[in-house]
Amino acid sequence: MNTLIKNGLVLLHGESGWTCEKRDVLIAGNRIERIAPDVEPQDCTVIDATGMLAMPGLINAHTHAYMTFHRNYADDMAFFDWLDKVQVLEDYMTEEDVYWATLLAACEMIRSGTTCFVDMTIKSAQETDGPRSAAAGAVRDSGMRAVISRGLAGVADSEESIMKFGQAVREMELFKDESRLQFIHGPHAPYSCMADYLQKLTQSCKERGIGQTIHLSESRTEMAGVAEDHGTTPIQYVDGLGVFDVPVIAAHCVYATDEDIRLMAEKGVSVALNPKSNMKLGNGFAPAQKFLDAGINVCLGTDGCGSNNSLNLFSEMNVASLVYKGATEQAQCVSAADVLRMATLNGAKAIGREGELGVLAEGALADVILVNLNEPQFMPANNIVSGLVYSAKGSEVDTVIVDGELLMEHRRLVSIDEAKVFEECRAIMERLDAQVQERL
Amino acid sequence: MNTLIKNGLVLLHGESGWTCEKRDVLIAGNRIERIAPDVEPQDCTVIDATGMLAMPGLINAHTHAYMTFHRNYADDMAFFDWLDKVQVLEDYMTEEDVYWATLLAACEMIRSGTTCFVDMTIKSAQETDGPRSAAAGAVRDSGMRAVISRGLAGVADSEESIMKFGQAVREMELFKDESRLQFIHGPHAPYSCMADYLQKLTQSCKERGIGQTIHLSESRTEMAGVAEDHGTTPIQYVDGLGVFDVPVIAAHCVYATDEDIRLMAEKGVSVALNPKSNMKLGNGFAPAQKFLDAGINVCLGTDGCGSNNSLNLFSEMNVASLVYKGATEQAQCVSAADVLRMATLNGAKAIGREGELGVLAEGALADVILVNLNEPQFMPANNIVSGLVYSAKGSEVDTVIVDGELLMEHRRLVSIDEAKVFEECRAIMERLDAQVQERL
Repeated sequence: MNTLIKNGLVLLHGESGWTCEKRDVLIAGNRIERIAPDVEPQDCTVIDATGMLAMPGLINAHTHAYMTFHRNYADDMAFFDWLDKVQVLEDYMTEEDVYWATLLAACEMIRSGTTCFVDMTIKSAQETDGPRSAAAGAVRDSGMRAVISRGLAGVADSEESIMKFGQAVREMELFKDESRLQFIHGPHAPYSCMADYLQKLTQSCKERGIGQTIHLSESRTEMAGVAEDHGTTPIQYVDGLGVFDVPVIAAHCVYATDEDIRLMAEKGVSVALNPKSNMKLGNGFAPAQKFLDAGINVCLGTDGCGSNNSLNLFSEMNVASLVYKGATEQAQCVSAADVLRMATLNGAKAIGREGELGVLAEGALADVILVNLNEPQFMPANNIVSGLVYSAKGSEVDTVIVDGELLMEHRRLVSIDEAKVFEECRAIMERLDAQVQERL
Repeated sequence: MNTLIKNGLVLLHGESGWTCEKRDVLIAGNRIERIAPDVEPQDCTVIDATGMLAMPGLINAHTHAYMTFHRNYADDMAFFDWLDKVQVLEDYMTEEDVYWATLLAACEMIRSGTTCFVDMTIKSAQETDGPRSAAAGAVRDSGMRAVISRGLAGVADSEESIMKFGQAVREMELFKDESRLQFIHGPHAPYSCMADYLQKLTQSCKERGIGQTIHLSESRTEMAGVAEDHGTTPIQYVDGLGVFDVPVIAAHCVYATDEDIRLMAEKGVSVALNPKSNMKLGNGFAPAQKFLDAGINVCLGTDGCGSNNSLNLFSEMNVASLVYKGATEQAQCVSAADVLRMATLNGAKAIGREGELGVLAEGALADVILVNLNEPQFMPANNIVSGLVYSAKGSEVDTVIVDGELLMEHRRLVSIDEAKVFEECRAIMERLDAQVQERL
């Protein structure tokens, strides 16, 4: 079935940057077929977008969707104390828990205009159907698009590592026909994943033609630890192991040095900024403008709900547009237009889908959101790009389409039974709380 | 008419901090009469608050409501360049423009749960009715509560200053019977308001038994200028002129020194943090935790839409809970509970209404908002206070009551014709744009 979005504005990106034009958008199957004024509806569903802006769905370049259960669970704590507390909860999570937690994440992401996310999760589905299908199954059932990695830590040849790696690879096989799902590897971090494992995962990426995502230079403690153990920075250390020889999304990079930045630019590493998480855990501010100046592909993530505590990319864009100005005392740095690119085009590039995602263009995949401009925070509408970044809440997203399929219509979720998800998640959280209490 | 809020949770504040209890809230006239379980409805309107949290309406301790017209108008510019650009637009604004701009601000504030704000505006109403009644008339027509100051600059005895001061005083007289309106003086800043004027306004505060609000230590340029002209900090300079001898809300205080902090604590000055504005203009981060440690009454403002660009205090709370952690690299600093106090109790204290506003308590004024907890960003509901600060968007506010009067019901504004406000504001902005273009 085709869909025609009529009477709205469309957010386009060209050589001169962002523009808003009065255009209709015709979706045929899962792709955008036409963007033009006054397209006549023929044999298609018409969405009246009067007073709305059609724009590319946002891409969350770094999150842990299963951590919705950690939301508002361990707040106002130092980084490594926090990590200890959240890991206790994780220990008790099953595949089913991850499935429901990821569906809860999908509810929040769809409602705030995210259509695609890069996930680092803790279970790999070994079944394709039902709640045991973990994050992959939840994404498939939600209708969203995602790039899923299994977070892996430890050494390469332990029994546990061999098992988890095998599960991750088997999951890729099981879901290989799901066109909205991609898989990459997810070595957790240089301090948690030993050298041999980082090398094994990189080798596996090469064999499978996939990329990987890793936490890098997130905290001062990590910097000090890697300096002591390896005499260099985390970024230069993993580069020395060949990690950057495949496409990489490096999350955080708060403490990237000038040499690290030069190196990441040279190797084509994408950096996923997570400003809210970095502040909440007391880690500080990444050198975002330096990344941009070096030509690095900078994208934007929310991190998990344990350290944010939301998955709202509009809120993350807002914060990203502000904190780097604050940290550098330069009001001109990291502009609204830059931030909007991070959450759209650059996210698409980071997952190897440049031109197909993160833009509204003829031939691109139909991941489209409609934003209701008829709210006071957008009035009197001096500049729409500024409005999206500086003034929007995320709740202005009225309609969400992924791969041509309607996932939210006038703020009603179509693909997910939200009440059922809330009910399941509340019950699971009660059980997890009891299990954690018992252990303490 | 009395109102009974039934079946919801209520956010209370006691010696042990914030708690959420299952309680009904009975409003009689403009005050809260009872907070208790299972109150029987008798001769009153019943609001079913199932799945909702009743909490005190938020108090915005520093804004310029008329600056909605400056929203997304001068972005990504250095502080004094920005000030030049916004002032050109201001030059063309009439009383009517201020009226509509302030009503637009009221739409956004009510929709995001703010029930009271401290305004520094640019016109004083010399008529009580119709659009010429400026900010005061707009607030009265919106049903909100506000503390209004006329921003004043220059020297005390110029013809212009004498006229503006006279207008400000006359406005206080004209609106003295409006119980939701308070008036204070608004000397703009130590660099824009000369010593004799600061002294005259302080004297006028004493005579009238009112307070004043002033921008202090907002930028490095201000610090350098006051150091050069007066050999001290802006805070110590205005204290030397007696400014702190009356109740003061000092906005920003980004560059407050330890001695400034000691002094403000001693003099009982309230500090209004404006973290988003401070970042957006490249001014940096205030020493918020030091203010709290010194026992200063710290409240929270959005500043005007020219430097934010929204009036959403939920978003401001979120940012306030994050940036000071980022700037100090201390995840334990400025907790969610602290921030929620800033936007409620502390705001009330700053305007001399401690115990009457900013709390839900028997005998307090009935400024109540209902927050819909049945949204994914609050699930699985581990901690409601954290949820309000770290996860809420502002759009979860379902119902708003001020002084016992319903201003928003299920997200429909009751007191304001929003479509009319949007239409007027768009037309005025077109005229202002044309006037600015003509001058350039």
